[in-house]
Amino acid sequence: MRQLQLIGVGAGDPEQLTLQAISALRSIDVVFVVDKSDPGESADHLARWREELLRRHRPDGDCQVVTIIDPRRNRAPHGQAGYEHAVRDWHAARAGAYEDAFAAVAPDATGAFLVWGDPSLYDSTIRIVQDVLARGRVSFDWTVIPGVSSLHALTAAHRIVLHGIGRPVALTTGRRLADDGWPGRPGEFDDVVVLLNSDLSALEQLDPAGLTIHWAANLGTPGQALAAGPLSETLPRIEALREQVKREQGWVLDLYLLRRRP
Amino acid sequence: MRQLQLIGVGAGDPEQLTLQAISALRSIDVVFVVDKSDPGESADHLARWREELLRRHRPDGDCQVVTIIDPRRNRAPHGQAGYEHAVRDWHAARAGAYEDAFAAVAPDATGAFLVWGDPSLYDSTIRIVQDVLARGRVSFDWTVIPGVSSLHALTAAHRIVLHGIGRPVALTTGRRLADDGWPGRPGEFDDVVVLLNSDLSALEQLDPAGLTIHWAANLGTPGQALAAGPLSETLPRIEALREQVKREQGWVLDLYLLRRRP
Repeated sequence: MRQLQLIGVGAGDPEQLTLQAISALRSIDVVFVVDKSDPGESADHLARWREELLRRHRPDGDCQVVTIIDPRRNRAPHGQAGYEHAVRDWHAARAGAYEDAFAAVAPDATGAFLVWGDPSLYDSTIRIVQDVLARGRVSFDWTVIPGVSSLHALTAAHRIVLHGIGRPVALTTGRRLADDGWPGRPGEFDDVVVLLNSDLSALEQLDPAGLTIHWAANLGTPGQALAAGPLSETLPRIEALREQVKREQGWVLDLYLLRRRP
Repeated sequence: MRQLQLIGVGAGDPEQLTLQAISALRSIDVVFVVDKSDPGESADHLARWREELLRRHRPDGDCQVVTIIDPRRNRAPHGQAGYEHAVRDWHAARAGAYEDAFAAVAPDATGAFLVWGDPSLYDSTIRIVQDVLARGRVSFDWTVIPGVSSLHALTAAHRIVLHGIGRPVALTTGRRLADDGWPGRPGEFDDVVVLLNSDLSALEQLDPAGLTIHWAANLGTPGQALAAGPLSETLPRIEALREQVKREQGWVLDLYLLRRRP
């Protein structure tokens, strides 16, 4: 493989693709698709969505799809250290699987990953590519093409800014919010975006006084759901919507912005 | 005015425009351009860049450009409270100027702002539109179209992720980093993105031990500059590059990611 492109393809709406991403899609020979083998989960949806992008932008059909079987991850480690360790082991196994796939394509080929949202935000592809290159068995040029991230798809859907005037924002995960509570020193962060939610349990542990939430699931897709309002009265509606989306679409990917105002 | 579109047009590279933004550009009747009347500053560059986008995507030339003269802001307030107060006064004056501009266009027209990067990240347009609507003199439908933000243009240019595995990120401003120091509780944030830098003084106040920096100026433009490495040895190079970009391009817009690793 001569070159690898990590293409951010936006947060769900095929109209969120950039001209740069489309040019890249038109130039590639191979698309690597990671098979996460969780049937019925969002991975299935992502695979269908990648196929749709290829149908639209590569009507020639002259782009090979190479499936990388994703090694299974230990999903039940305890605490942050256990979590990081499990994720690192999994990444090492993944690097081996990716390396094999890269080594098998033609030496003058350009390969690509189509990355949901933007490749820098809670996505492992950049890290795995760096791991593969560090192993030294294969080498190639690589570029990253930025995409519209779910962060900005969320704020656009709700027509809100991320933060107060000149104020900071924290981006974190549902797991970390549940384990560590509200980020920062007292009074430091009034706006917190929470991604990678496997459920809503982190929200149930917060003191809802003064908190509002802007929530979205399956952004940019026909099954998109939105809800916003004071946390205490909005949470039951979000819980119901989340279940409904999961039931009707077969998958749910959600994120939310929490705002604290005195 | 019937409708207003706030269109995120990416962080400097015209190829970062999304299909959704291009469709919107093709549908609008009026583009509002804010004249910040700081001659020789980045505003001039932004104005030229908006003209370039219109030339590319509206070759019919059938899109009226309406200039809104931006009221001057008090640039020398003291402390965070003084800063917020000055910005709020300025926003109230701006809301009046925007309201006059909106009231003057045809009642069935679709207007637009072309917003650098993404409209949710350190940009005032959404807030001003909400202020104008709250005043009640004019009313219209409005939508926000997300864009590739400078955040993701930075990480793509450097081919890096924003954060460690499952770790949080803080987004803040140069002013706040200088006033408040490193964000969060001890050990909480290892990755901090700093935007809205009028200079690099915030960096000079940090203890550089264990810190690396990924810096970019004038991202996506032909005058783009990048630098990365340990903070202590990279800062002099960044200072020189920043001066060079300013001298050669006539303007500089920069941001950086600070990473702390033990």
